[in-house]
Amino acid sequence: MKLGLFGYGTIGRGVYTLVEGLEKSYDVTIKKVFDLPIKKEQLKEKLVTNIEDIIHDDEIQCVIEVLGGHDVPYEVITRSLKKGKSVITANKEVVSNHLEEFINLAHENHCYFCFEASAGGGIPVLRPLIDNLKVNEVNDIFAILNGTTNYILTRMDEDNLSFDDALFLAKKNGFAEANPTADLEGLDIVRKINIISSLAFKGNIKNEDIYHYGITGVNKDILDSIKKEGYALKFVASSSKNEENEAFIRVEPTMVSLNHPFAAVKNEFNAVLFTGSTNGDLMFYGKGAGSIPTATAIVADLVSILENRAYIDYKNQNDLKVNQNKRNPFKYFIFASDGSYVIKEEVSDEELLAASFYARVIS
Amino acid sequence: MKLGLFGYGTIGRGVYTLVEGLEKSYDVTIKKVFDLPIKKEQLKEKLVTNIEDIIHDDEIQCVIEVLGGHDVPYEVITRSLKKGKSVITANKEVVSNHLEEFINLAHENHCYFCFEASAGGGIPVLRPLIDNLKVNEVNDIFAILNGTTNYILTRMDEDNLSFDDALFLAKKNGFAEANPTADLEGLDIVRKINIISSLAFKGNIKNEDIYHYGITGVNKDILDSIKKEGYALKFVASSSKNEENEAFIRVEPTMVSLNHPFAAVKNEFNAVLFTGSTNGDLMFYGKGAGSIPTATAIVADLVSILENRAYIDYKNQNDLKVNQNKRNPFKYFIFASDGSYVIKEEVSDEELLAASFYARVIS
Repeated sequence: MKLGLFGYGTIGRGVYTLVEGLEKSYDVTIKKVFDLPIKKEQLKEKLVTNIEDIIHDDEIQCVIEVLGGHDVPYEVITRSLKKGKSVITANKEVVSNHLEEFINLAHENHCYFCFEASAGGGIPVLRPLIDNLKVNEVNDIFAILNGTTNYILTRMDEDNLSFDDALFLAKKNGFAEANPTADLEGLDIVRKINIISSLAFKGNIKNEDIYHYGITGVNKDILDSIKKEGYALKFVASSSKNEENEAFIRVEPTMVSLNHPFAAVKNEFNAVLFTGSTNGDLMFYGKGAGSIPTATAIVADLVSILENRAYIDYKNQNDLKVNQNKRNPFKYFIFASDGSYVIKEEVSDEELLAASFYARVIS
Repeated sequence: MKLGLFGYGTIGRGVYTLVEGLEKSYDVTIKKVFDLPIKKEQLKEKLVTNIEDIIHDDEIQCVIEVLGGHDVPYEVITRSLKKGKSVITANKEVVSNHLEEFINLAHENHCYFCFEASAGGGIPVLRPLIDNLKVNEVNDIFAILNGTTNYILTRMDEDNLSFDDALFLAKKNGFAEANPTADLEGLDIVRKINIISSLAFKGNIKNEDIYHYGITGVNKDILDSIKKEGYALKFVASSSKNEENEAFIRVEPTMVSLNHPFAAVKNEFNAVLFTGSTNGDLMFYGKGAGSIPTATAIVADLVSILENRAYIDYKNQNDLKVNQNKRNPFKYFIFASDGSYVIKEEVSDEELLAASFYARVIS
């Protein structure tokens, strides 16, 4: 099988290397790579700088999209699927906005659409979820989905660093992007919990409907207070559905007690915890980002395409509504600018947003 | 698709119920159930008491084997596969002894052999491992694979129970069998780590070659000492492979530090931690036993058969040897009959077995 690779950045290079390793087991090769002309020296004659050169190449049966961003990836994915080419992507922005459309296009054009790497990075979490959902109704999801912020919170806690120093260290070690706003404010997590929740709850969710509150307000005083109370601070997405098909999805700083499985999720690691009707708690833990872990998930998808078993049965079955209110009287830690704090239930969103910093409390 | 179910015990009844729930989404039904005549009242005309009634029924394209034991399951599985019927089993004894043979038979007869439930129960761990292994070489596995013993150790620790009282409670709550020897001595874990290691290391392993040391010697004094040192006691399988294709596999009581992810694996939960060349640490956590969780894994396998994507590419690629020695100078906790203990490295197996109780120490 001939492949077209869109994007030769950090993840693209990882994919390129791993596909070369696959060539001894399968008849597979990357025929063309789309990127900017500046990559000519590395890619030689494989480089193409016009997306049409891949989309109109009938010999290419599968494309891997790791460009990032929205508009070009959306065009690449939809036009490739319409040509009957299978598509693998790690792009959470475009998948969170168009999941149902892409899966339907793949079904209509008898090809595959795979996106394991788009949520949870290198952790195989979407396929097991889809497989289980045929009998195991998942109505509660709890997840650490961003390596950058988990790394920052871990280093602040363990090395007693300030937020800025921990962010600097994250950038230095390749765990944070030059502009980390989407990570710090929770937008990256919003997209990932959207993808996971859409699959679990079988309905479309708009990113704009997901509440998020970032971690930029964390400081050492706050972490000390949280530690004193016997908790660890994590940046957590929680998502649940009730019997009226209402989804409650929130991305917010969350204190977990030290014997909760999430307390041991440190540095760039991620974890996703599902509570299902037949299976109880299931947790998946691993590296949620990074070139080679993400490329591993992409190439595992590629293998399932090569072995002709990448079909995903996803049907948007219900009229899902996203309710912006909190579902339960959750307990919250509210930190004031004078350094005092309270832990209390029955608190309004207005009160939370008026605080210097807040975190949900989970035992 | 018409199914034949072998065994209508705890797991068989769970499978029966979940397959009924699947009938709204797929054209699938259980046509016949093999069990003893005593089940006539429950199963009515679906009951058959002769395995030939299923094996020779050409309308039945897939059989689910949840009988337990070795000889009859081995006959059922091999003869069904030779007839071109796909097979799903939860039977760790028979899978650990004949994995390669079953997979080869399935390939030769153009049907599927699925065994997700045979290791890790309700946790989807084997399929993600197989998918990842195409590029992610896994040379280290660390696992809590037995719900009974993990439940006993948790209750002893948290409720301050004696071993016998915790075992009694486990039986009462359905987490231990009437004869729990295979669980307590580690034989059950041996079979499961054999299946996982065979897939990961791509070679055959004999159960007899796996070292195991049970937990029946644990008492409150020992748990208190372990707690005092800042550890939690778990019954752990560790399995690794070196560059000379030697496997080192041990099942033994193991102390994990309280910030190790395994410290939070409690009661009937299981966890499997892989360390891979491309993906780093990956952990899967969930219910490793129980009727409905195990049945969920079986029915997820069934769905992959119904969707025609259950192919497993397993090739025994190497001349794997199981080395019975310890691989590294591991650290061990050695407890003497007078209540004293030491923690030390460079200890021989003879010294370990001469102790009143011992546990490996993991930070």
